[in-house]
Amino acid sequence: MPKIETILTPALFPLYKEGIAQKNVVVIDILRATTTMCVAFANGANRIIPVGTPEEALLFKDQGFLVAAERSGKTVEGFELGNSPQDYTPEKVHGKTIVITTTNGTRTLRLCNDAARVLIGSFLNISALANALLADGKDVMLFCSGWKDKFNLEDTLFAGALAQQLLAGFEPLGDATHMAMDLHNLAKADMAAYLQKASHVQRFKTLHVESDLDVCLKLDTSSVLPEYMDGKITATK
Amino acid sequence: MPKIETILTPALFPLYKEGIAQKNVVVIDILRATTTMCVAFANGANRIIPVGTPEEALLFKDQGFLVAAERSGKTVEGFELGNSPQDYTPEKVHGKTIVITTTNGTRTLRLCNDAARVLIGSFLNISALANALLADGKDVMLFCSGWKDKFNLEDTLFAGALAQQLLAGFEPLGDATHMAMDLHNLAKADMAAYLQKASHVQRFKTLHVESDLDVCLKLDTSSVLPEYMDGKITATK
Repeated sequence: MPKIETILTPALFPLYKEGIAQKNVVVIDILRATTTMCVAFANGANRIIPVGTPEEALLFKDQGFLVAAERSGKTVEGFELGNSPQDYTPEKVHGKTIVITTTNGTRTLRLCNDAARVLIGSFLNISALANALLADGKDVMLFCSGWKDKFNLEDTLFAGALAQQLLAGFEPLGDATHMAMDLHNLAKADMAAYLQKASHVQRFKTLHVESDLDVCLKLDTSSVLPEYMDGKITATK
Repeated sequence: MPKIETILTPALFPLYKEGIAQKNVVVIDILRATTTMCVAFANGANRIIPVGTPEEALLFKDQGFLVAAERSGKTVEGFELGNSPQDYTPEKVHGKTIVITTTNGTRTLRLCNDAARVLIGSFLNISALANALLADGKDVMLFCSGWKDKFNLEDTLFAGALAQQLLAGFEPLGDATHMAMDLHNLAKADMAAYLQKASHVQRFKTLHVESDLDVCLKLDTSSVLPEYMDGKITATK
């Protein structure tokens, strides 16, 4: 039976690199990069190009792309979009290519270039993801972006929720996956209430973006399946 | 109010180094290095010297020290003791200096040379530890040894249990500490049953050392307070 492993932060990625070419990776940055990417595709975006720095992103602006940059939770000056899913309306993103850089999520993506497939995870498309991974049947790595290399609750909750959905065809491997499933079980009745103690939700309050939390925790509002390949993300529905 | 932070594995230690000179660190390797150290002191050991490699430990054998070495859960050939707390009987350890090297625990210890104090944590002396930390009042780092740099359940459970006892005088800081407390709450009614899914407990079965698990989960059987300083561990009671 194929296995599900969980990488709790990008700092631990080197421990899981071996054999990654035979594995499907789900990149997770629930608050908010990967959720926002799913929203963008659900609202008609054509393509997303993740880049490392705001400077790199700005180079694309002159080429007519929509540019998005977030650092420490805030939209970087000079950019049309930040990292709030609520900004990625159909009016703004339909048919567009978006070039984006975020504190944690885009970095995580670029780490797993060698994986068999790299899928973009969020609660919004969790069942579509689970179905794709079950159909593929390859070992799965749930890769949490964390916060500046530290563990975070929200990405781990999502890893646990997805692992739970994969149990039909997969076996959890390693203590991190078991912990993530237990944490999700504990929190699932009211994830927004559970996450009030999360550092990044505290940060949301300072940044006055609390309303993003509920948006990021909605389940199965979309069946998009964004996939990262050759430096670009595109999506099937 | 002073803070409690939790380092989930030694690979994450660099993220927590800043300001460590003002913090008390608790080194945690429940299965089994730090538990075994507490048992050794409870049974009358005089001093423990943690070293990096079995080769280094053997140099001490000729000087009349008791030498202990464990790798991947097994006693290394040529050594009198491994890492099982049940081997550290009063007959063997009373009045002795023990030189020890283990897969994870001794490495963790040597990482935190610069901390204000480095205390050795186990369920056996959890209340003695909590009282010492509360009396000291400095910020606390709960430092889980993990397994070869990966997250493990048993060290995290202990971090959660100790954090819980510290809430009288401390504030949890960071998502890892919250997760550890939640996990401990979930498991505390029967920690041995909860830990059956832990990778290292699975490893115990292969190694036929299952009976160590119950020994390592006993609460407050001792009031020893082993402390690492200048390359050596000594204990007060």
